[in-house]
Amino acid sequence: MSKQKNNSTNAILLMHCPDQPGILAVVTDFINVNGGNILYLDQYVDRENHAFFMRVEWDLTNFIIPQNKIEDYFNTLYGQKYDMSFNLYFSDRKPRMAIFVSKMSHCLYDILARYTAGEWNVEIPVIISNHPDLESVAKRFDIDYHVFPINKDNKAEQEAKELELLEKYDIDFIVLARYMQVVSSDFIMHYPDKIINIHHSFLPAFMGAKPYHAAFERGVKLIGATSHYVTTDLDAGPIIEQDIVRISHKDSIADLVYKGQDLEKIVLSRAVEKHIDRKILTYRNKTVVFN
Amino acid sequence: MSKQKNNSTNAILLMHCPDQPGILAVVTDFINVNGGNILYLDQYVDRENHAFFMRVEWDLTNFIIPQNKIEDYFNTLYGQKYDMSFNLYFSDRKPRMAIFVSKMSHCLYDILARYTAGEWNVEIPVIISNHPDLESVAKRFDIDYHVFPINKDNKAEQEAKELELLEKYDIDFIVLARYMQVVSSDFIMHYPDKIINIHHSFLPAFMGAKPYHAAFERGVKLIGATSHYVTTDLDAGPIIEQDIVRISHKDSIADLVYKGQDLEKIVLSRAVEKHIDRKILTYRNKTVVFN
Amino acid sequence: MSKQKNNSTNAILLMHCPDQPGILAVVTDFINVNGGNILYLDQYVDRENHAFFMRVEWDLTNFIIPQNKIEDYFNTLYGQKYDMSFNLYFSDRKPRMAIFVSKMSHCLYDILARYTAGEWNVEIPVIISNHPDLESVAKRFDIDYHVFPINKDNKAEQEAKELELLEKYDIDFIVLARYMQVVSSDFIMHYPDKIINIHHSFLPAFMGAKPYHAAFERGVKLIGATSHYVTTDLDAGPIIEQDIVRISHKDSIADLVYKGQDLEKIVLSRAVEKHIDRKILTYRNKTVVFN
Amino acid sequence: MSKQKNNSTNAILLMHCPDQPGILAVVTDFINVNGGNILYLDQYVDRENHAFFMRVEWDLTNFIIPQNKIEDYFNTLYGQKYDMSFNLYFSDRKPRMAIFVSKMSHCLYDILARYTAGEWNVEIPVIISNHPDLESVAKRFDIDYHVFPINKDNKAEQEAKELELLEKYDIDFIVLARYMQVVSSDFIMHYPDKIINIHHSFLPAFMGAKPYHAAFERGVKLIGATSHYVTTDLDAGPIIEQDIVRISHKDSIADLVYKGQDLEKIVLSRAVEKHIDRKILTYRNKTVVFN
Repeated sequence: MSKQKNNSTNAILLMHCPDQPGILAVVTDFINVNGGNILYLDQYVDRENHAFFMRVEWDLTNFIIPQNKIEDYFNTLYGQKYDMSFNLYFSDRKPRMAIFVSKMSHCLYDILARYTAGEWNVEIPVIISNHPDLESVAKRFDIDYHVFPINKDNKAEQEAKELELLEKYDIDFIVLARYMQVVSSDFIMHYPDKIINIHHSFLPAFMGAKPYHAAFERGVKLIGATSHYVTTDLDAGPIIEQDIVRISHKDSIADLVYKGQDLEKIVLSRAVEKHIDRKILTYRNKTVVFN
Repeated sequence: MSKQKNNSTNAILLMHCPDQPGILAVVTDFINVNGGNILYLDQYVDRENHAFFMRVEWDLTNFIIPQNKIEDYFNTLYGQKYDMSFNLYFSDRKPRMAIFVSKMSHCLYDILARYTAGEWNVEIPVIISNHPDLESVAKRFDIDYHVFPINKDNKAEQEAKELELLEKYDIDFIVLARYMQVVSSDFIMHYPDKIINIHHSFLPAFMGAKPYHAAFERGVKLIGATSHYVTTDLDAGPIIEQDIVRISHKDSIADLVYKGQDLEKIVLSRAVEKHIDRKILTYRNKTVVFN
Repeated sequence: MSKQKNNSTNAILLMHCPDQPGILAVVTDFINVNGGNILYLDQYVDRENHAFFMRVEWDLTNFIIPQNKIEDYFNTLYGQKYDMSFNLYFSDRKPRMAIFVSKMSHCLYDILARYTAGEWNVEIPVIISNHPDLESVAKRFDIDYHVFPINKDNKAEQEAKELELLEKYDIDFIVLARYMQVVSSDFIMHYPDKIINIHHSFLPAFMGAKPYHAAFERGVKLIGATSHYVTTDLDAGPIIEQDIVRISHKDSIADLVYKGQDLEKIVLSRAVEKHIDRKILTYRNKTVVFN
Repeated sequence: MSKQKNNSTNAILLMHCPDQPGILAVVTDFINVNGGNILYLDQYVDRENHAFFMRVEWDLTNFIIPQNKIEDYFNTLYGQKYDMSFNLYFSDRKPRMAIFVSKMSHCLYDILARYTAGEWNVEIPVIISNHPDLESVAKRFDIDYHVFPINKDNKAEQEAKELELLEKYDIDFIVLARYMQVVSSDFIMHYPDKIINIHHSFLPAFMGAKPYHAAFERGVKLIGATSHYVTTDLDAGPIIEQDIVRISHKDSIADLVYKGQDLEKIVLSRAVEKHIDRKILTYRNKTVVFN
């Protein structure tokens, strides 16, 4: 990680492909030869699966390929040849994020405090909820708030409206900030690896509803929180970040719920930041998270 | 800790005295015999210094001594006899807290998010700063914001005005939420063990200014944050809470500053909560912090 | 915890009973009035289940009830009256512990290093294994080593021999230090809440065989270890201690196994120490672990 | 980290040099073109100081340059040209390590348990001490043990004998496993960045003698341990690894000493392992520690 800011535009390439000798040199040469100044480079080789993963960020100030043609050139020259899956991002295009909430405010406040302080290179134009409770929070931060109450009968219909709204706001990715409603497979399909959830347990322990109750019942000595990409398998998507806090026999269920809140907000915000910074690759239902 | 709430009034006794056999029984008998229902009891004996520490919280619903006479009775019957230092608090009187800030908002937001969500049994009527920068945050949460710019020449005068204002707001204790200004001894004398600071290092390492720069220079592998009561000795007051986060050679000073923010806000809020919950005793420049 | 040693004999009472006002005073009075000097006292009230838990340790130097009659007196005077479950221990009787191992030595070494350095008030007269591999380790520390190879056909017979041997060695409790063999219900019945196991995951995640493989497959970002009392429900007994270590996408299964070893040994040794120090009460398939 | 073993010989290059575009490609090309199979590659650029750091490990099976000429070739072709500081190691040459101890055995046992279990690619032919106390431990593991009692008057003389002995045993690096004796500058000069110490505090807090006493006095809520390379500045050499454990007001000095032991042994062993695996570069009194 590095938080130093500069004013020029950077390109960020996130890629993976079958591993082969020299693949790293191919990519770095492409950047160096064409006048790019590499700022950060991280790579990882999964020896078992013979897969190569890379994140490289470079300054475009003297790069001779026009910004809007880099993707095309790179794909033509190397992408197909090396069977790469890759995404190219530019620092002058802020990703646009929607937040989904229900009634609990701790994750929402943590995100908005960072956003308002300018810590994240992101736009948050809209908050969506199945309850009206947190509208006052949205108003405090001058962000649009839309309520879509959801029940068994209207779920498909309401999600369709939500998708329409997300499109209207030109949303790139979604953060479920303690959104207490299972999202449908159809909805998820519209944002593959682009919906980040926070689950209040150290997955895969205590999947599903009421994990703190289950943790209390089991008598664990640590409680956890897990941020992950949402897939059609409930609480089983690629894990981005996890952390835990120590508890004891003295803690009631209410204590676990309360102590867990600090975990949830920090673990979720760490994951969102990694996503915004284009540092996460998904592969085989796991994540590669670069520093 | 326990977050279950009840509607009746509780009394909380925080005390310490020279240790002697039976002291615990004396206090619990006083409560039991007079109809009090003990909810929480924590005690600790410092064997080396022969000192006894206790926190006991009881439900006053059936307590036969009137609330406004408990302190007098207890002092007369036991306080003097056993040479106790004690404080008695009641849950129906919320402590009143002032926040001092400068330009950084992360600790302030963390506190206000908890406050607004009703997590803490506290009133926060005023925010004081030496800079106008965070007035917009205060406005978002409808809390009065007063600016007292401070320099060498006007410090005594400005602090006098601050003290006047604190009195006007009937403030019980003060939280320095990354307030980047040393508070004078005179000011501190008005709020002994009632000013909580957050220092951005694991004290006693890196006392004073620019601890992240010093940590970077030294090449540490962990950075920390420390909340403590402010005494006239800079960064040397009784420590309430500390925590750390792992860093690496990859982290720049800017990264340390950024990573440290999550630590600072959590460590400060934990300390403030313990103070609000009347769980901290100070003794010989250290704290006894009950769970 | 406190590691100061004294030469006089201490009594340790571990008890729980239905909660009622004054129960704490009853027990402390019994000790004080009869000349006992209370060294440590910890108590905990489970408000939800109205259960009172207590550990009290006192110096017997001036205690007027003879050591061998304390249990009888206490039971007659209070035990039955208050419906107590209690155990009384004396510091001059070291508990006797057997270690069960298979092929991995890290937990065994950690235990024996502490034992040899005199850190624990315990006797370890025997190590039992289903494999001959670690006999050389046992020899290094001059501890008897017995091998009982176990398969489906001979299990009942071999366990009977093990029980006989344990009786011969006058064993109080058993530590399964990465013993890779499920112990039968019949065997467990002989040592209820007296067999401590280390499981190489943060239970209840990854119960059963090959938890590191399962953790790798799931892509978790933390791995854990859990020490617990063995019950007839596999990996589902009362949890004593847990801890975790951070991993990343870079770690292979072999890395997880290796990184987990440090966790396993520390988590197991912490649990064993708490057991030796008589600081654990079990209740409703959970533990109360005093500091 | 990766613990998979193979039987072929690997080369490990640890290097740093002034940063310039293409430096990574130059090194990887050298390996690829000559038939080396890169197994691990880590690089880091210190943007502020324009310095490039790299660790690359490759399989020599099909490498066309003979093992004993690689260093010469690499230096001639690139080392001088790019102003590199580099070291080249081979997996078929185990580093040889000496352990220095005094009276406490916990770090020594932890190291020897790992060594005996074959976890580390190292030879430990000798243990040196200023006290006879731990000779029995050395004997248990069949390692030579030499005692050099040291006082003000004989220090230079005794250290000279130690150096002679270290030469005789062909020692590459030294681990001070709670060796309670300051090593002279002259001695250190013989093993620059090759003496690893464990200090029982989170440096730079509590440098020098009796850090647990100082930590207790200050009332900290965390205690730490720090492994570092020894330089002529006491407790001020490049930090390799640090960790902490939580304590409370209940802990006596003896408790801190005891709780700190687990920290010390784990933190020291992690540092030693990184050193053995050739994963540490030192630079400007700091370390770059690759994963």
